[in-house]
Amino acid sequence: MPVLVMKFGGTSVATLDRIRRAAKRVGVEVAKGYDVIVIVSAMSGETNKLVGFVEETSPLFDAREYDAVVSSGENVTAGLMALTLQEMDVPARSWQGWQVPVMTTSAHSQARIEEIPTANITRKFAEGMKVAVVAGFQGISPEGRITTLGRGGSDTTAVAFAAAFGAERCDIYTDVDGVYTTDPRICEKARKLDRIAFEEMLELASLGAKVLQTRSVELAMRYKVKLRVLSSFEEMDDAAGTLVCDEEDIMESNVVAGVAHSRDEAKMTLVSVADRPGIAAAIFTPLAEAGVNVDMIVQNISEEGRTDMTFSCPTNQVARAEKVMEEAKAKGEINFHSIVADKNVCKISVVGIGMRSHAGVAAKMFRVLANEGINIQVITTSEIKISVLVERKYMELAVQALHDAFELDKG
Amino acid sequence: MPVLVMKFGGTSVATLDRIRRAAKRVGVEVAKGYDVIVIVSAMSGETNKLVGFVEETSPLFDAREYDAVVSSGENVTAGLMALTLQEMDVPARSWQGWQVPVMTTSAHSQARIEEIPTANITRKFAEGMKVAVVAGFQGISPEGRITTLGRGGSDTTAVAFAAAFGAERCDIYTDVDGVYTTDPRICEKARKLDRIAFEEMLELASLGAKVLQTRSVELAMRYKVKLRVLSSFEEMDDAAGTLVCDEEDIMESNVVAGVAHSRDEAKMTLVSVADRPGIAAAIFTPLAEAGVNVDMIVQNISEEGRTDMTFSCPTNQVARAEKVMEEAKAKGEINFHSIVADKNVCKISVVGIGMRSHAGVAAKMFRVLANEGINIQVITTSEIKISVLVERKYMELAVQALHDAFELDKG
Repeated sequence: MPVLVMKFGGTSVATLDRIRRAAKRVGVEVAKGYDVIVIVSAMSGETNKLVGFVEETSPLFDAREYDAVVSSGENVTAGLMALTLQEMDVPARSWQGWQVPVMTTSAHSQARIEEIPTANITRKFAEGMKVAVVAGFQGISPEGRITTLGRGGSDTTAVAFAAAFGAERCDIYTDVDGVYTTDPRICEKARKLDRIAFEEMLELASLGAKVLQTRSVELAMRYKVKLRVLSSFEEMDDAAGTLVCDEEDIMESNVVAGVAHSRDEAKMTLVSVADRPGIAAAIFTPLAEAGVNVDMIVQNISEEGRTDMTFSCPTNQVARAEKVMEEAKAKGEINFHSIVADKNVCKISVVGIGMRSHAGVAAKMFRVLANEGINIQVITTSEIKISVLVERKYMELAVQALHDAFELDKG
Repeated sequence: MPVLVMKFGGTSVATLDRIRRAAKRVGVEVAKGYDVIVIVSAMSGETNKLVGFVEETSPLFDAREYDAVVSSGENVTAGLMALTLQEMDVPARSWQGWQVPVMTTSAHSQARIEEIPTANITRKFAEGMKVAVVAGFQGISPEGRITTLGRGGSDTTAVAFAAAFGAERCDIYTDVDGVYTTDPRICEKARKLDRIAFEEMLELASLGAKVLQTRSVELAMRYKVKLRVLSSFEEMDDAAGTLVCDEEDIMESNVVAGVAHSRDEAKMTLVSVADRPGIAAAIFTPLAEAGVNVDMIVQNISEEGRTDMTFSCPTNQVARAEKVMEEAKAKGEINFHSIVADKNVCKISVVGIGMRSHAGVAAKMFRVLANEGINIQVITTSEIKISVLVERKYMELAVQALHDAFELDKG
């Protein structure tokens, strides 16, 4: 039997009614002849409640205990989903991460899946079971402790199962009906994409389009797992949602696939850094070691042996970044005049694999923003993406103008 | 290091504050030099919530999935307790049932513990860990599925750990400060007992004194585990609570240790049963097979080959008992005129190991009830217990009169 993986996020299993609704969708796929692996998240709100318990109990918590506590929400949903399917006469059983076992690294709270042995579940399928319901987001370390994969980890669980079982497709059911050219809440012309390439999705995911977790897209790309994003709140339709697939499976596409934005970005400037060979390493190595996720980096032209170094990082890491820089200065590893942190910025990006073969996308982007009177503070580019930092108040205007200019409302 | 087992019930871990309070008690025992095994229940209300989810999802649920869902509450508390202890600089870690592993039978939802290997936890103690926090109520079947031990199973987990580790004592922290001569809510003269014999506790537990689960007392008696029941809501005091111990450890005791009552009792009468050898087996075998917990049995004197058979069972099993009896009648296995179910009764019992050596306790009990004008409907006796069924409205009066007559308010 072909295997299908179906993943239901927290809002799709938030109540017993929604679990029933999700189970009906599973039943439809079983009726088509699939052996189905269902990956479930915790009922929405549950994980936050548990995280709240842990943080209140122990601000600097032992991540192993954090994982033991926080993973329990998925176990509840897995059992309830199996029971719901059984009520519909669909042979099903639940698996917790350690039962499969989903073998991960020991990096608690952000473990990576290393292996998913398929023997147990495959044997159950051979015995007539139609659905394996697996608690997402969790696994077991080499030491036998429970691990979790980090926020959004259930997407990664789903893709890893799809890869391990050679699934025909991995359907991610969520509360949006697909991937859009931009955020429909800030641009009403936003259009749902039928297909998007892995590389584009990867850029959009890491840019803050919260549809799929970045790691799950990376994994899908590496193992060529066809990913479909679709809403669990709309009527079923085989053509529904957005298929995330190989570039070759997309016949024609716009040069630009989408416009992304992120408010969660701060600009940090080290003013008047003593410039010398190795200064970039001296700045960014301690930041990386402290877990600061540096995104964009710009170094100004050096004058008289001193330069300004600007970088961006998530807003909630600003304090940590400042502390690390002051410590490095105190140790004499770097030398600068002052640090300026600016949280009043946002990042706007245009993404598209078509950029590889089309010149002038960056120029057009800059022109559009200039026409709107929007000043660009920082620029970075990759092969299929151009990102700029602009003042936060221009976010909606920038997104709408770019969406229009690249004609993203036209399919 | 001597090992101490401490068990905290649902009300004792109902909030993060209460978990902290419980952890402080654990810290005190660690400071005395004990290696401590802490057994925790789910935060109060959690298990009921999960059971509600399961029952709403699937009225005739798969007990394996029920166990997978319902066991998750204890996992949360175990992790939170370990984190709380760590915050107090007490080296601690949590164990879920499958990690120990607590090996049980496959009788899901009412599994029995078969073995608790001590090697893992003992090694951790040797390495400097001071507290092993274990999720109560759960284990793992030979098939590798999660099992639960049934309601109140955490008490059983605690005693089983105390037996396996040769613990000096097993302290059961709950919301009452010990075992009383009777229910203080219906008899204000009720007095807390300092000590009670296993056999007495066993009778009281099975009679509805909800302090300890019957199975945990049985297990403690078999393995000579000293059990102490005490309140987690009162100041700590080494002499606090009630010690459940061997008869020999009780210097002097009253003839009667306590008066118990149970409202959850119904009287069933099979009217005009065709009497023949084997009729009792024909009646009670199918009831047992259907899981009806028959308690008292009385057979009236046979007249003209027909007799009345009366038995008691929990009120919520009356419908099932009636169904089983009607089916047996339809199959021709038994023959009776009618079934009369009377839920308007209650059971009153006096319990005490002193009865073994003191005659006249039953006679005194009957006289006391007669003096109050209370009619006795059914009587059963054991070596250390006399139970009667009386009309429910007399419950408080009967308990108070017996408590006075046996002078239980005097130590």
